[in-house]
Amino acid sequence: MSNSFGNLFTLTTFGESHGPAIGGVIDGCPAGITLDLEAIQHELDRRKPGQSKITTQRKEPDQVEFLSGIFEGKTTGTSIGFQIKNTNQKSKDYSHNVDVYRPSHADYTYDQKYGIRDHRGGGRSSARETANWIVGGAVAKAILRDIKITAFTSSVGDIFIDKPYQALNFSEIEKNMVRCADPNIAEQMIKHISEVKKNGDTVGGTITCVIQNVPAGLGEPIFNKLHAELGKAMLSINAVKGFEYGSGFCGAKMKGSDHNDLFNPDGSTKTNLSGGIQGGISNGMDIYFRVAFKPVATLIQKQNTIDASGNVVEMQGRGRHDPCVVPRAVPIVEALSAMVMADAYLLSRARS
Amino acid sequence: MSNSFGNLFTLTTFGESHGPAIGGVIDGCPAGITLDLEAIQHELDRRKPGQSKITTQRKEPDQVEFLSGIFEGKTTGTSIGFQIKNTNQKSKDYSHNVDVYRPSHADYTYDQKYGIRDHRGGGRSSARETANWIVGGAVAKAILRDIKITAFTSSVGDIFIDKPYQALNFSEIEKNMVRCADPNIAEQMIKHISEVKKNGDTVGGTITCVIQNVPAGLGEPIFNKLHAELGKAMLSINAVKGFEYGSGFCGAKMKGSDHNDLFNPDGSTKTNLSGGIQGGISNGMDIYFRVAFKPVATLIQKQNTIDASGNVVEMQGRGRHDPCVVPRAVPIVEALSAMVMADAYLLSRARS
Amino acid sequence: MSNSFGNLFTLTTFGESHGPAIGGVIDGCPAGITLDLEAIQHELDRRKPGQSKITTQRKEPDQVEFLSGIFEGKTTGTSIGFQIKNTNQKSKDYSHNVDVYRPSHADYTYDQKYGIRDHRGGGRSSARETANWIVGGAVAKAILRDIKITAFTSSVGDIFIDKPYQALNFSEIEKNMVRCADPNIAEQMIKHISEVKKNGDTVGGTITCVIQNVPAGLGEPIFNKLHAELGKAMLSINAVKGFEYGSGFCGAKMKGSDHNDLFNPDGSTKTNLSGGIQGGISNGMDIYFRVAFKPVATLIQKQNTIDASGNVVEMQGRGRHDPCVVPRAVPIVEALSAMVMADAYLLSRARS
Amino acid sequence: MSNSFGNLFTLTTFGESHGPAIGGVIDGCPAGITLDLEAIQHELDRRKPGQSKITTQRKEPDQVEFLSGIFEGKTTGTSIGFQIKNTNQKSKDYSHNVDVYRPSHADYTYDQKYGIRDHRGGGRSSARETANWIVGGAVAKAILRDIKITAFTSSVGDIFIDKPYQALNFSEIEKNMVRCADPNIAEQMIKHISEVKKNGDTVGGTITCVIQNVPAGLGEPIFNKLHAELGKAMLSINAVKGFEYGSGFCGAKMKGSDHNDLFNPDGSTKTNLSGGIQGGISNGMDIYFRVAFKPVATLIQKQNTIDASGNVVEMQGRGRHDPCVVPRAVPIVEALSAMVMADAYLLSRARS
Repeated sequence: MSNSFGNLFTLTTFGESHGPAIGGVIDGCPAGITLDLEAIQHELDRRKPGQSKITTQRKEPDQVEFLSGIFEGKTTGTSIGFQIKNTNQKSKDYSHNVDVYRPSHADYTYDQKYGIRDHRGGGRSSARETANWIVGGAVAKAILRDIKITAFTSSVGDIFIDKPYQALNFSEIEKNMVRCADPNIAEQMIKHISEVKKNGDTVGGTITCVIQNVPAGLGEPIFNKLHAELGKAMLSINAVKGFEYGSGFCGAKMKGSDHNDLFNPDGSTKTNLSGGIQGGISNGMDIYFRVAFKPVATLIQKQNTIDASGNVVEMQGRGRHDPCVVPRAVPIVEALSAMVMADAYLLSRARS
Repeated sequence: MSNSFGNLFTLTTFGESHGPAIGGVIDGCPAGITLDLEAIQHELDRRKPGQSKITTQRKEPDQVEFLSGIFEGKTTGTSIGFQIKNTNQKSKDYSHNVDVYRPSHADYTYDQKYGIRDHRGGGRSSARETANWIVGGAVAKAILRDIKITAFTSSVGDIFIDKPYQALNFSEIEKNMVRCADPNIAEQMIKHISEVKKNGDTVGGTITCVIQNVPAGLGEPIFNKLHAELGKAMLSINAVKGFEYGSGFCGAKMKGSDHNDLFNPDGSTKTNLSGGIQGGISNGMDIYFRVAFKPVATLIQKQNTIDASGNVVEMQGRGRHDPCVVPRAVPIVEALSAMVMADAYLLSRARS
Repeated sequence: MSNSFGNLFTLTTFGESHGPAIGGVIDGCPAGITLDLEAIQHELDRRKPGQSKITTQRKEPDQVEFLSGIFEGKTTGTSIGFQIKNTNQKSKDYSHNVDVYRPSHADYTYDQKYGIRDHRGGGRSSARETANWIVGGAVAKAILRDIKITAFTSSVGDIFIDKPYQALNFSEIEKNMVRCADPNIAEQMIKHISEVKKNGDTVGGTITCVIQNVPAGLGEPIFNKLHAELGKAMLSINAVKGFEYGSGFCGAKMKGSDHNDLFNPDGSTKTNLSGGIQGGISNGMDIYFRVAFKPVATLIQKQNTIDASGNVVEMQGRGRHDPCVVPRAVPIVEALSAMVMADAYLLSRARS
Repeated sequence: MSNSFGNLFTLTTFGESHGPAIGGVIDGCPAGITLDLEAIQHELDRRKPGQSKITTQRKEPDQVEFLSGIFEGKTTGTSIGFQIKNTNQKSKDYSHNVDVYRPSHADYTYDQKYGIRDHRGGGRSSARETANWIVGGAVAKAILRDIKITAFTSSVGDIFIDKPYQALNFSEIEKNMVRCADPNIAEQMIKHISEVKKNGDTVGGTITCVIQNVPAGLGEPIFNKLHAELGKAMLSINAVKGFEYGSGFCGAKMKGSDHNDLFNPDGSTKTNLSGGIQGGISNGMDIYFRVAFKPVATLIQKQNTIDASGNVVEMQGRGRHDPCVVPRAVPIVEALSAMVMADAYLLSRARS
């Protein structure tokens, strides 16, 4: 089931950017969880287009409607259906795309796989799908209570935060439009994105995510290791090209005598190059990881490409695309992390 | 099922390093596939301990016995049971570990999760488990036929191959004991590992894997994207801290105008920063990715650590551990890749 | 995932009878399948309430709206979202049920399991859910093409068809309101249900289903045997108490010398007590089975029962319930059978 | 995965009757469960061939060897591998079967599905597989503790127990070789089977199973209803043709006013036609169901059949087959029931 995520806490989704609605079904949520519908909508607002000058100027309210599974403000233990209506489906905008394969998009591969394709706005491969994930993640967060998940933009192009996350003030993140945890770096990032946008170009970046207050013992030891589930989740996000946790790729350059995390008598560790996970199972320290996003493929510049018959054609994106996907991807990283953690938490209860 | 891997082509495993045997069940292999048992054993020999001076000197033959599912040299379509007997279970060697949590091992997290632990040699968290994966991968390769999977050591500590994989001669890989595709770099790596070993230390490294002759259209579009499945597989390997495919973390620094892969009229692309996958689905170009391994945690040096009661104790690894896990992990990366690709291939047949 | 059905062809559902809508997500449908939306609506009309004098007089149009996965009349291979709006949610009708456990309903068990319950009309346990299954089954039928699935009422109370299905004319089924394949027996059944209804009582019955033109080789040999999947599907329908296929419970009284199906030279069998399946796999003969439905639990008579505090209270159902569930269950049996067969068919393509 | 059973508590199996061994992997068993290895072997002995004059005279010790997942007598939470060696593989006995399709066996359907078949003794379709299930069930029973599962032979041919199960003394079951809960009926059954055997014929029968001390709230409400999982499990057993629970097929003849189970003030019910389950969820009353077994297809009589080329050939079974499968199937029914209940129990912990 390629449209389902999770094992015990699951999200199954549907929808194209240009149909009447997107939506999904959340299954496996325990009964009796209080859902704060405003908080859920707030998460959607963090992802929605048009929220600042450095995101796409497309306007879409992204209003979620719950259709089942909630009674008098609490989950009933039955499946939670929801939908988000599409209100901004200017199909005509995409008529120029009918037969054209946009470079570094999924147009060509969908045609190769399915032999048929809804060419309007990327169809199912549109990042609009991630609005569904926000809803799933917001419900997952209500299960997790004490576990705190915080993501932020850690680099845009060559500009990066040069401090460990422990030195950052997470309350700064939502104060700037690029969602960087360092206000000075944030300004540089915003300036850089603005310039890139002016040139009709796009730029990549990275997001760092920190998961705190995780009890020891979550995760599975062999094939569904906690970091492997997190990695798979992150690699599900459009434009993601890499994932590392703890010491990550830097760890590959290190010696064991520098890398080992020595224990304190209470079981915590003096350092945390492990990233809060040993053998696939949480050890009670902070879990942290970093996700790499490539630059958005849609440029407001002319590019040569081909159509379905192999003819070379010239194309140019219209003006409603993100110059950098990273700021709007921050809540998506959090949402998928929350779903992974809720799944691991529920599974740990079955086994305990 | 945390001991199962895959969707249609599945491997379910069992075994601790110090029980009578490890093994597993391969399910979903189509009928009529010819299995070359010598080739399968050859793959196991590439992983086995004691194969060179830069690996652990522990000797273990790792002889696989098939118990079902094969008739007159061909798969019958029924489940394939197999076992690998443990012949080198010096349990006494591990008596000093009963209550001691080795730093950056899974001892502590297993105790936190399960409240009980087979302390002999890491129990289920031992890398010995990966011998099972080699068997699964070797059967998967027999299904894949034309699809060619090649992994090699691309860095050890600070020493790395400074060429793109296209400039390398893959036939060099098995000619040196570090499994590096460049013979000169290989010598430097071997020298470095030997020095590290002499100091009782360990070192990390990276493996690059290239998958060639992949038809376009394999993989799923939303949650089981082909690269997400590959990433999850790699993150299942002990000591792996990161995964990137195509442009990876470098891509996060790039502009869209540099990153887009422009099409040739035949649907191939002029560049391949995408890494052979668009929207989760193969596009017919080479798939390639890189995996980061941390340094082995067991040192032949004294370290302070704690026991289950929180007492500080001094410990030191015995002499039969790998100074660098990367050379023996090369066939493991290939095996897991083969299982992911076989799964995607079978699924594509169901959908076609 | 207790709200999902199937392995490769899956249906995930949501919805209570008194929320804004019910609906679901169909995943795994191959691309390029032409969907006849009128035919799908026709299946829903066969199930909908109020269609004849022997069903509930509640009126509900049960209009399906597809939200994704279909482009220009064909499936695109992506997930198919749909909803059916609830138009007849007289919540006030159910206010008398708030704390009352109706006998032989799921009220008590939901409260025991979840500790919270949407008491309006049965909530999630309402048979309204089966409208979702009709949609899934109708899409499955479009995949199956030549495989023909026919269900009919074979008994009501003590009245039963006393002929083998081969002696019946299936074109009679939809000509009478009880969906019996024998017009004379149908009249007796209708008369009986009418009398039962007049007394405020209800009555059980059985449905027989015949699946024709099944190629040999569908189904799995050990745990997902074709008849086990069919049986599980049937046992998912509200009010079902039993399932038998081929010779069924009668077969348990027979001798092997009478029961064995001897082969014709072409591989067909002279008799078909096996019911078209051997070892879990179809053999090319007709698959047939019988499903037992208990009488509807809601009576238009006074009954004593208890409330959540254990007080004895008197209750009486209101006038909009089915006196016999069987006629409206005929299309449900067909729909679930179609989903099982589509799943087996797709799986056989992966393995072939 | 057609060789896997269960969701959280899973059994994955392998093995043909004529390979070196059968076996499997149990996954999802919680840590710290004490396993009584003698009790497990005792369950295998109840199923093994050659235990009485009314079973096959084939001798096979069916000794289980555990290979992992158990440490000092307790489960460790990791996967439990086990094998049962085949000691009685007279392959030559089956040489006459190479190309012959035995009537009402799976020979023909395996050939149609896989195009290749291990013809020795039924290969994977042999009932020998059920020895693996006994092991899985015995481990499941260790999880269930208070839940008591009792199966017994309730009919053989036309001879049946004419009392409700509440009137029977379960301690009689293991005192007679047919495993009937009524000693007088047992004698008649044994006599009947002996006669049938003398004629080289076989006979069917039914098994009733009662599950006691089940807490309310186990099971899932929509697609994995507790009785649907039990039904699917029973329909997985070779030779099973039907399943009914509670009032079963008799319930289909009843009126609602007779069928409803009225509540006592404590939530128990005055009658139990529901069979302990409402809406797929246990209600705390006894769960009971009945399973129909067809007569064994292998006769010690001459029968005409065909070979793979469609030639008519005469065949006759050899002397080591069961005249009635039911007595040896009693522990199999219990084992599968235990696995279903353990799965439901673990799942309920995740959700609670």
